[in-house]
Amino acid sequence: MAGSTFGTNFRITTWGESHGAGLGVVVDGCPAGLALTESDIQSYLDRRKPGTSAYTSPRKEADSVKILSGVFEGKTTGTPISMMVCNTNEHSKDYDDLKDIYRPGHADYTFDQKFGHRDHRGGGRSSGRETIGRVAGGAIAAKILKEKGISFLTYATQIGPVRIDPNHFEPGAISENPLCMPDAKAAVEAAAYLDSCRADQDSAGGIIECVITGVPAGIGAPVFDKLDAKLAQAIFSIGAVKGFEVGDGFAVANANGSTNNDAFVSNEAGIAKATNHAGGILGGISDGSPIIFRAAIKPTPSIGKEQKTVTKDGRETTIAIAGRHDPIIVPRAVVVVECMAAVAVLDLMMENLGSRFE
Amino acid sequence: MAGSTFGTNFRITTWGESHGAGLGVVVDGCPAGLALTESDIQSYLDRRKPGTSAYTSPRKEADSVKILSGVFEGKTTGTPISMMVCNTNEHSKDYDDLKDIYRPGHADYTFDQKFGHRDHRGGGRSSGRETIGRVAGGAIAAKILKEKGISFLTYATQIGPVRIDPNHFEPGAISENPLCMPDAKAAVEAAAYLDSCRADQDSAGGIIECVITGVPAGIGAPVFDKLDAKLAQAIFSIGAVKGFEVGDGFAVANANGSTNNDAFVSNEAGIAKATNHAGGILGGISDGSPIIFRAAIKPTPSIGKEQKTVTKDGRETTIAIAGRHDPIIVPRAVVVVECMAAVAVLDLMMENLGSRFE
Amino acid sequence: MAGSTFGTNFRITTWGESHGAGLGVVVDGCPAGLALTESDIQSYLDRRKPGTSAYTSPRKEADSVKILSGVFEGKTTGTPISMMVCNTNEHSKDYDDLKDIYRPGHADYTFDQKFGHRDHRGGGRSSGRETIGRVAGGAIAAKILKEKGISFLTYATQIGPVRIDPNHFEPGAISENPLCMPDAKAAVEAAAYLDSCRADQDSAGGIIECVITGVPAGIGAPVFDKLDAKLAQAIFSIGAVKGFEVGDGFAVANANGSTNNDAFVSNEAGIAKATNHAGGILGGISDGSPIIFRAAIKPTPSIGKEQKTVTKDGRETTIAIAGRHDPIIVPRAVVVVECMAAVAVLDLMMENLGSRFE
Amino acid sequence: MAGSTFGTNFRITTWGESHGAGLGVVVDGCPAGLALTESDIQSYLDRRKPGTSAYTSPRKEADSVKILSGVFEGKTTGTPISMMVCNTNEHSKDYDDLKDIYRPGHADYTFDQKFGHRDHRGGGRSSGRETIGRVAGGAIAAKILKEKGISFLTYATQIGPVRIDPNHFEPGAISENPLCMPDAKAAVEAAAYLDSCRADQDSAGGIIECVITGVPAGIGAPVFDKLDAKLAQAIFSIGAVKGFEVGDGFAVANANGSTNNDAFVSNEAGIAKATNHAGGILGGISDGSPIIFRAAIKPTPSIGKEQKTVTKDGRETTIAIAGRHDPIIVPRAVVVVECMAAVAVLDLMMENLGSRFE
Repeated sequence: MAGSTFGTNFRITTWGESHGAGLGVVVDGCPAGLALTESDIQSYLDRRKPGTSAYTSPRKEADSVKILSGVFEGKTTGTPISMMVCNTNEHSKDYDDLKDIYRPGHADYTFDQKFGHRDHRGGGRSSGRETIGRVAGGAIAAKILKEKGISFLTYATQIGPVRIDPNHFEPGAISENPLCMPDAKAAVEAAAYLDSCRADQDSAGGIIECVITGVPAGIGAPVFDKLDAKLAQAIFSIGAVKGFEVGDGFAVANANGSTNNDAFVSNEAGIAKATNHAGGILGGISDGSPIIFRAAIKPTPSIGKEQKTVTKDGRETTIAIAGRHDPIIVPRAVVVVECMAAVAVLDLMMENLGSRFE
Repeated sequence: MAGSTFGTNFRITTWGESHGAGLGVVVDGCPAGLALTESDIQSYLDRRKPGTSAYTSPRKEADSVKILSGVFEGKTTGTPISMMVCNTNEHSKDYDDLKDIYRPGHADYTFDQKFGHRDHRGGGRSSGRETIGRVAGGAIAAKILKEKGISFLTYATQIGPVRIDPNHFEPGAISENPLCMPDAKAAVEAAAYLDSCRADQDSAGGIIECVITGVPAGIGAPVFDKLDAKLAQAIFSIGAVKGFEVGDGFAVANANGSTNNDAFVSNEAGIAKATNHAGGILGGISDGSPIIFRAAIKPTPSIGKEQKTVTKDGRETTIAIAGRHDPIIVPRAVVVVECMAAVAVLDLMMENLGSRFE
Repeated sequence: MAGSTFGTNFRITTWGESHGAGLGVVVDGCPAGLALTESDIQSYLDRRKPGTSAYTSPRKEADSVKILSGVFEGKTTGTPISMMVCNTNEHSKDYDDLKDIYRPGHADYTFDQKFGHRDHRGGGRSSGRETIGRVAGGAIAAKILKEKGISFLTYATQIGPVRIDPNHFEPGAISENPLCMPDAKAAVEAAAYLDSCRADQDSAGGIIECVITGVPAGIGAPVFDKLDAKLAQAIFSIGAVKGFEVGDGFAVANANGSTNNDAFVSNEAGIAKATNHAGGILGGISDGSPIIFRAAIKPTPSIGKEQKTVTKDGRETTIAIAGRHDPIIVPRAVVVVECMAAVAVLDLMMENLGSRFE
Repeated sequence: MAGSTFGTNFRITTWGESHGAGLGVVVDGCPAGLALTESDIQSYLDRRKPGTSAYTSPRKEADSVKILSGVFEGKTTGTPISMMVCNTNEHSKDYDDLKDIYRPGHADYTFDQKFGHRDHRGGGRSSGRETIGRVAGGAIAAKILKEKGISFLTYATQIGPVRIDPNHFEPGAISENPLCMPDAKAAVEAAAYLDSCRADQDSAGGIIECVITGVPAGIGAPVFDKLDAKLAQAIFSIGAVKGFEVGDGFAVANANGSTNNDAFVSNEAGIAKATNHAGGILGGISDGSPIIFRAAIKPTPSIGKEQKTVTKDGRETTIAIAGRHDPIIVPRAVVVVECMAAVAVLDLMMENLGSRFE
């Protein structure tokens, strides 16, 4: 199954397992002449690494990235950029007890069904560490987009039952609370909720929202490679995602055409929309408004609470997963969502260059 | 922009506009030796054609399919299957007044931004008629899957504010009411709601659910080509879709690991799951349980009610769209959702053939 | 096997069999705004149709093309261009005797080995008629390239043992003799040779050369998608091709670095090369010189002479193929070679648009 | 330009430059359960490394490979196999004088035209070292094929003017002379010829032939992904290749149908061919006979002899390339040709798994 590549023009190919030698990505199709250093990548990886708050795993993973190719004298050459993060803090032994037990909510059973032979240590390729390559690749995409005037704001709108108050949206709060919520008050409540989950040896889920501003109208292809369809694949390919919606999303089910359609208006900058129920995409093509989407993240499947399950040979048993697990994945997944969105948007922007005969 | 192809091993390439000569699809990668006739395809196309109830457009579109290649003596040959539906009922003149006005909620503006030159008649390539090729291709995928023991049940769970009662799920009702709801009572309420929308010259949205049974464990690739990620792209590439979720979907945000994880159990057939919050997919790979997903469908953007908009040159105006439009897209979109799901599942099943060294 | 698509950005998907309803192509990724009519395509198809001289099959195939989508008001819309040629002159009965006999030099046996079920009439999908879709798609590519200042000159340099005299290259002769040779004298000799082949119920091969002028430096990707590598695939995918070479080709085996390297020189237009042994490509990327390649075309496998072969069930027998076959494929293949080259060059040119960060 | 990936089902993505940190490959789509160690790869890399004879560069490059992912407990897991070779013997300074001069026969000028910014050290990405990733990936493909009963024999048939005598084909000689010729006498002559080239500060070219035995009938797709077309792309993507031919190749131009067609015969094993002019491929699909192809390799462009060229800013100058260059690339290219062929064949074999409906 050759499913480790995403993108056509700007293309990332990730590799690596949780407890192997390391993880990495090959970025192919990056234009030549972009100033790029390891620190451009590291700042994104630091946003996903654990151990940064009480609400992420206490594991210490430095996750230092090395650029191995494709950059010369500080600038990209247009050839593949290979990046790698070495694994340094593996506790492989932690997993010896688990190798013949299928952890509920994990991919242990399905990998065995597909491949027969599986690296059971820390989930192997199905580990959240697989996202390191995505973040490293997405950091480059985001840098290119930033220089084109495109920026991302990504945050949690919901942690368990706690939702942000959309009327008191505080962008400044996102980086000031460990839960990446744009609402300081909600973040405090959410932290209290997570404390109770943890006391119960349990975990929580949440919702991540991403707003992309500056995307010009005209990005995306009309049929299967719609901008929203490629974003859907990009975001749903992140392990814990169970839902994806754009603009008003599932709420459109109970809207009417008259309330859901966005009126076009004319202003000094040209044609714009009076509202943005569509989330910046019409017919699969960006309309110049901010692109808005949300992803639902499931609770961390690794919990200390005892769960029923079976062994590889079908014997029923119970499992209580010890170890250093995140009580919630949402805060660390924020940057992964942002990076996958950056790759999807850039890939389609580059395809767009040939859309008109001139 | 070469975005009219979906799939790698089983691949559909669609073409055609609302008011051109016709629409079609080339299916490449269909295995040889499958018994196939036009009636296999026509029965699916008949499920999407308009004019079948008070709640679809009264347009008369026969949508008769012709198989032009790839089938010999009633069986597929393994070479491309080209299929075509001729357009017969075009009222191109209906659209002359609209050619310089951007219809809210439609892709008129974004197509102009992308391509400059656009077929404005009935939306051209962005018309819902574009889905004819998807349905014709998906009908073949569904036939192959059926012979492998895989079946689809697809229906509306919500029309505007009316939801089905999950405790009184009536599969037999789906084909007996024009709204494809598995709840006869809800269908009556939904019809009344749609009558009121129509009286207001307005339209409604809804939610479609699809349950796929019989998919063996092991389908889907671990990273970017996860089964749910490819389904997400496939479903989100359908024009009116604004949300997609698998299993418990957005509800996972407020679940805990202990309630969201599905316990593995052992039964006579082997290993199974006690519940199915995951919707049949773990780590992007099918787990042998039914695959369950939902799509949110926006209200038809074409409404008779007056809306504010602008002309191509930026002059503000209003528009009231006459013509023969669907008050709701959901009932006709049911088969489109099913067909895209069939293509996505089959494509990944075929990739799967090489996943183990033997 | 989904192998009927070529190209990434400018993409052709062909379909159809020799004796089915027709043959066609879907061109995806053509930029919007290109003036295009059926006559642009027809003039290329006319170059490949039979019955135009004593040295092609006497079959009468009008091969009239219809554009079914993607063109509106005489200009491309950026959406898929579907084109079709109906089959009108099928003598399917001619092939009834052949359905259980494997014709030497044809794909009958290999298709049966691969697919089990095969359309035996006239070779089905392996017929030379399959190239109709390539020519229709390539005609569009060639038109775009022409407007970018890129032109093609394609001709036969060898027919059986008769070679053109490179010192008396007459481009004007190409369209004036039925063998497309740029040497009127050689064309007369070649015609005499073909007359003798025909008298022997035999067939002949030859070599086609293509010179592409006006390609700017910088087209092609450094590794697997080198311009020459994609041309190699494009040309070798034409049924009868058994050899492909660029520039000095196989003669480089006996050259030295000092004679094979092309010196760079400076002239009023900038940097150029004093010679062109490389055939216009260095490191897989165009260097601004004319691109020159040759393809070796095998003798038509269908001959009247008796040949040994076997039946489907392995019984040894003989076969003498009656019917209306070309004594040589070369003259009709000239335009097919040109069209595939046009698709390959355009596809890489469009990828090139994103190669620099600006 | 995202052109560093080859293959669909079995896919290699290479990265790295001559004088960067290292070079590598990500192999995606390798089936799970294959026994694999670094020594499986190293034995192939050792065949391409320099310094092994008087007729390769005296550079010392250990080219030790490391497997970084995708293998667990000695067996592949079905997830990406990342492999890397560190660069250890770079003499970057050697190239400082060359950074503003375009070397004839190299890609310096075309890279600058395409990318603007270029790693000039040793050719950067256009260096022959780029083939390290191909060989590492191809070694895995070859191992899988070997276990399926498919083997490769690859050798030089011509070095400069010296050709092997096909009537005295000695397979055992291939590994016993430094020029990989299956004719000990010709190898001695060729060595003498290379000595004279070297004395002249010049270089030589040659022809490589590859014979693949054991490929079952039915591999390859009928149209663009013909087995020979994909082999053509695979082999032509190797830097120094200027010609490619299958079976009788360019000689078919002067053959007749009656001599070029291979008669089918019946033997105890089933249906076979009496001769193999076709080189094992009919209609793009393997016919069960040995697959035979040849590649023409140009003389090493780096020579000590003085050559005319220009600087980056167009000033005419001369260049005499010192350094440790191969007087001929052929012996080291043998394994690269073999490995690319292995990847192409395996990729199409894996696609083939779904070609029949059963």
